Amino acid sequence: MRIVFFLYDGFTVLDAIGPFETLSRLPGAEVTFVAKQTGLVANDNQLIDIYAPQSIDEVDSADILVVPGGTADEAVRNDPHQMDWIRKVSQTTQVNASICTGSLIFAAAGLLTGKKATTHWARYDVLESYGAIPVAERWVDHGDIITAAGVSAGIDMGLHLSAKLAGDDYAKALQLAIEYAPEPPFQSGRVSDAAPETVELVAAMMGGEETPPSPRPLPAKMHRVSRGG
Amino acid sequence: MRIVFFLYDGFTVLDAIGPFETLSRLPGAEVTFVAKQTGLVANDNQLIDIYAPQSIDEVDSADILVVPGGTADEAVRNDPHQMDWIRKVSQTTQVNASICTGSLIFAAAGLLTGKKATTHWARYDVLESYGAIPVAERWVDHGDIITAAGVSAGIDMGLHLSAKLAGDDYAKALQLAIEYAPEPPFQSGRVSDAAPETVELVAAMMGGEETPPSPRPLPAKMHRVSRGG
Repeated sequence: MRIVFFLYDGFTVLDAIGPFETLSRLPGAEVTFVAKQTGLVANDNQLIDIYAPQSIDEVDSADILVVPGGTADEAVRNDPHQMDWIRKVSQTTQVNASICTGSLIFAAAGLLTGKKATTHWARYDVLESYGAIPVAERWVDHGDIITAAGVSAGIDMGLHLSAKLAGDDYAKALQLAIEYAPEPPFQSGRVSDAAPETVELVAAMMGGEETPPSPRPLPAKMHRVSRGG
Repeated sequence: MRIVFFLYDGFTVLDAIGPFETLSRLPGAEVTFVAKQTGLVANDNQLIDIYAPQSIDEVDSADILVVPGGTADEAVRNDPHQMDWIRKVSQTTQVNASICTGSLIFAAAGLLTGKKATTHWARYDVLESYGAIPVAERWVDHGDIITAAGVSAGIDMGLHLSAKLAGDDYAKALQLAIEYAPEPPFQSGRVSDAAPETVELVAAMMGGEETPPSPRPLPAKMHRVSRGG
């Protein structure tokens, strides 16, 4: 079972790693990371690089195609070369799975037209603009295509997909192996739980409309070294 | 605020990425990944590589030191070069934070002697062997050292630490940004919730004592391409 994670500069790393941590441990899983070019792929805040050993020109099919979201999904949607690849490979799979704004890439490829789907809560409007029907679910499973909500939702979706592929007992073992018994320190993970000002702040941050407010000062430390320097 | 993630071949990628996704977005965060040598660092199942732009010989301090767990924490504990670095850098920080079996590295460095701490549920005995007091908590915070439970616990710990560093309001915004409102499809994330046979299976898998049972067959697909090939 060949699981292909599509990466692009500006992807959100937890989107990919959440489901990777379970899907990559399924029996028979062959995992690869694919990007427009082989090499290092930087995440959305350019603070981590993941290696893509294969380019999209080297991969023409998959059993499971996983597409993470990020801040640069729009650049992918506007690139015919990558979108042609998404359209081509997505036709060869058992399951296409997106996390966060990865669903906007699937929607732009025409895979979600007229279908219920989800994405990051701040991007329902973009999803709808492609003819999908946004719903506020943790994931939406149509069998051949699954869309998960924002970032961390990929962990839940990955366990759900693991259960479909390898059985509930195996998925439960994976859940225990990653000790996934969440205890968020706050109840602020969904719009309906968060304070209105928190929602506004995050929407503005994601829209690039304003910088976040300064938090209280951090204790100073002496040795600041630039990354790579 | 310089946040240093220590990587080693055989680390568990979600251990690092869970807290990375929030800590790297704190105001003033300067993040780097450090390993014994610069270059690509493979995770525990060798299916993903993260780039470490700096070697431990190039970094002698940090504000926050983050140490993930993995299947190769023992190799680190047995390597004087890496352990000397852990001991040295951990003395320069505001906070040392571990996830999963990363706490065993801190314990081996003498940082947890006589202290309550946590780790992956299947490794409490190793933690205790170093003189720490294992507790089944999602995280244990002593101010200057925080240990989190297995793998996914790093997400919760990362939000907790984000709140300490940048305030509750900012941490709540980060939680909403990553849409962290978990909906695990099963209740199997902690030993007390999981079925006894699930606990035995995972303990055996982690001990390398037996291979997991075969799940039901997966639908075959035609194009199997080896990673990198």
